[in-house]
Amino acid sequence: MIHPIPPGTRDVLPDEMRELRRLQTALLDVFESFDFSEVRTPTIEYADVVERGDDVAPAYRFLDDRGELLALRTDMTIPIARLVATRFGEVEPPYRLSYIANAYKAITPQRAQLREFGQAGIELIGVDGANGAAEVVEVLTKSLEAVGLNRAVIGLGEADLWRCLLSDFAADPALVASTSARLAAHDIVGLELELETADELSLEQTACLMKLIQLRGGPEVIGQARGMGGPAFEASLDSLQGTCDAIAARGGADRVQVDLGLLRDIGYYSGSILEVYDPSVGEIIGGGGRYDGLMSKFGVDLPAAGFTLYLELIHKAQLEQGRTDD
Amino acid sequence: MIHPIPPGTRDVLPDEMRELRRLQTALLDVFESFDFSEVRTPTIEYADVVERGDDVAPAYRFLDDRGELLALRTDMTIPIARLVATRFGEVEPPYRLSYIANAYKAITPQRAQLREFGQAGIELIGVDGANGAAEVVEVLTKSLEAVGLNRAVIGLGEADLWRCLLSDFAADPALVASTSARLAAHDIVGLELELETADELSLEQTACLMKLIQLRGGPEVIGQARGMGGPAFEASLDSLQGTCDAIAARGGADRVQVDLGLLRDIGYYSGSILEVYDPSVGEIIGGGGRYDGLMSKFGVDLPAAGFTLYLELIHKAQLEQGRTDD
Repeated sequence: MIHPIPPGTRDVLPDEMRELRRLQTALLDVFESFDFSEVRTPTIEYADVVERGDDVAPAYRFLDDRGELLALRTDMTIPIARLVATRFGEVEPPYRLSYIANAYKAITPQRAQLREFGQAGIELIGVDGANGAAEVVEVLTKSLEAVGLNRAVIGLGEADLWRCLLSDFAADPALVASTSARLAAHDIVGLELELETADELSLEQTACLMKLIQLRGGPEVIGQARGMGGPAFEASLDSLQGTCDAIAARGGADRVQVDLGLLRDIGYYSGSILEVYDPSVGEIIGGGGRYDGLMSKFGVDLPAAGFTLYLELIHKAQLEQGRTDD
Repeated sequence: MIHPIPPGTRDVLPDEMRELRRLQTALLDVFESFDFSEVRTPTIEYADVVERGDDVAPAYRFLDDRGELLALRTDMTIPIARLVATRFGEVEPPYRLSYIANAYKAITPQRAQLREFGQAGIELIGVDGANGAAEVVEVLTKSLEAVGLNRAVIGLGEADLWRCLLSDFAADPALVASTSARLAAHDIVGLELELETADELSLEQTACLMKLIQLRGGPEVIGQARGMGGPAFEASLDSLQGTCDAIAARGGADRVQVDLGLLRDIGYYSGSILEVYDPSVGEIIGGGGRYDGLMSKFGVDLPAAGFTLYLELIHKAQLEQGRTDD
C-alpha cells in the first residue's frame, strides 16, 4: 500500500541510514580536527532573517499562531551569521563553526531535485582574504579525502571577474545581471547567444568573454587572462592569484582547479568562490567561498568564508565510486 | 546585536552540541544493541498523513508551489507507520526501527515550551500484547541507564482503565472525553471538580474514581483496583497484570512504577501506556506504549508499540543530575 510523500523528500531505510551516519561522523571528525565546532540552529527562522542574507524569498513560508511570518531555512550560512552576530559579541574572533543540518528549497517538477536536503559544512568568520579562503580549501580537501572521494575536484573562481570584464566593455548592467545568472546556471549556449546579440559588444569582445570562461586548469590560466580587461579586472585576477599562492603554501593545491568561468547563484558571495565536482555524479556536490558582506547585514563587520557539502550527493558519489572501483 | 529567533526554538552552541551528540550516540548504540535500526523520514509530510494518525491538525501547515497542503511532522510514530505500510510489504514482520529526529508542535506563549524539539525512540511493529510492551520497556530501561539517568522512573498504565470505569458508572461520553483530557494533562484539581459536579455520578463513585487514579506503586496496586468496575475494567487490569508479569520475566521491573491514573494525550494509544519521569526535572521526559490501531489506518493490520524520549529534557535531566552528584 503506497502512501506518498511530497516530491523532493525521501525516506531513508536502515542500510542507507548507517552509511549516512558514517558519512556524517567522518565529516564532523575532520571539522573538529581543524577546530571547527558544531552548532545547531532552528529549522524554522523568521522569514526576514532568511531573506536578509540572500535577497531571495524562501520557498516555504507560513504564519504561526501569533501571526508571525516564519520560514524553513534555505541554508546554514545565514542562520550562523545571525547566531554569531547575536551570541558571540563577547568572544574574540575568529570563530570556527561547523554544522550538519537539513535545508529547504523550491523544486522544479519532474527533475530529481530535493526540496529537503542535508548539508555539512564549515564557517570561518573573522579571517580575511587569501588566508581565510586557503584554510577553507584545506578543510574541504581533507573532508573529501575522509569520505573517499579521491577523484573530486575543487573548482576555484573569483566572484567579480565576469562583472569586471563586462563593465570594462561598457556592457549594460541588465546584461551583466542576465549573463551572470546564465553563467551561474552553467547555461553556456544561452550565454553565448545573448552576448552575440548584445548591441554594445563587438565580435572581439564577445570572443574574449567566451575565452575567459573557458580558462580552466592550474594557476597558469590566470596569466592567460591578463590584459583582457582594465584595473578592476586585473585586481580580481591578483586576488585569485593570491588565493592560489596561499593554497599552495599550505600544500593543498592538488585537488584545486582554477576556473575563470565559475560563478555561483547565491547572492552573498564575494571574492573567492568554490564549487565541488565529482566525475561519478553529474551534479555539483558542494560549494562555498568568501562572503565578506554577509555578516554586516547582521550588524557585525567581519570577513567570512566557508563551504557546504550536499550530503545526499556526496553519498551518491561514494556509491558510484564503489561501483567503479570493483 | 540581537536577532531574535521564533519563540520555542533554540540555537545550540558548541559545548552543548558536543553533549547532545554524545547523548544521541549513546541512545543509538542501545537501540542497535537490541536490533532496532535507524530510519529517517521527511520533516515535511502531506498534511493528511500527519492528521490520519492523530486526529489533530498539525501546528505548521503550508501550501507548496503545486498547491499541495504540507505539514511539519508532529512525531515520528506516524511517519514510521506510513513508511512501514509503504516500504516493508515484502519483509516478514516484526520490524524493529529507531529514529533521532526533530518534531514540531504549537506552543502556549509565556511557557518555556519548545515548538521544535528532538526525539529519540523506537518502534516495535508486529509483536503484540505483553511481550511487545515488555521488550519496549526493556530497551527504554537500558536507554535511561546508558544516558546516566539512574533515578528515572517509567510509569506504566493501561489506556482503557479510566474509560471503562466511567462507563461502568454510566457516565456520559462527553464526561469521559473531558475528564480523560484533564487526566492526561495532570489537571487533578479540575478533574475532581468536574466529577463532583457531574449529575450522573454518586459520591461513592466519585471517591472510587479519585482513588483509582491515586493507585501507584508495584504491581500489587492492581489488586487494590479489583472489584471497582465491571468485566471490561477487570479485563484492562488483567492486561496490565500481564504486562507487569512479562516485564518481570525479563528482569526489568526495577524502574517501573505501575500507575492506574496514567493517561496520555496522544490519540493513537491502546493498551499499555508509558511515561518517563526524572526527579531532577519537573516535566515528563519521555513516553510511549502500545498503538495497535495505528498501522491499520495505513492499511496494514499489525500490532505495534514504542517509546520516545525528549532529547532536550533528557539533556536537562543529565545536567541537573550532574549538579546533584557533585
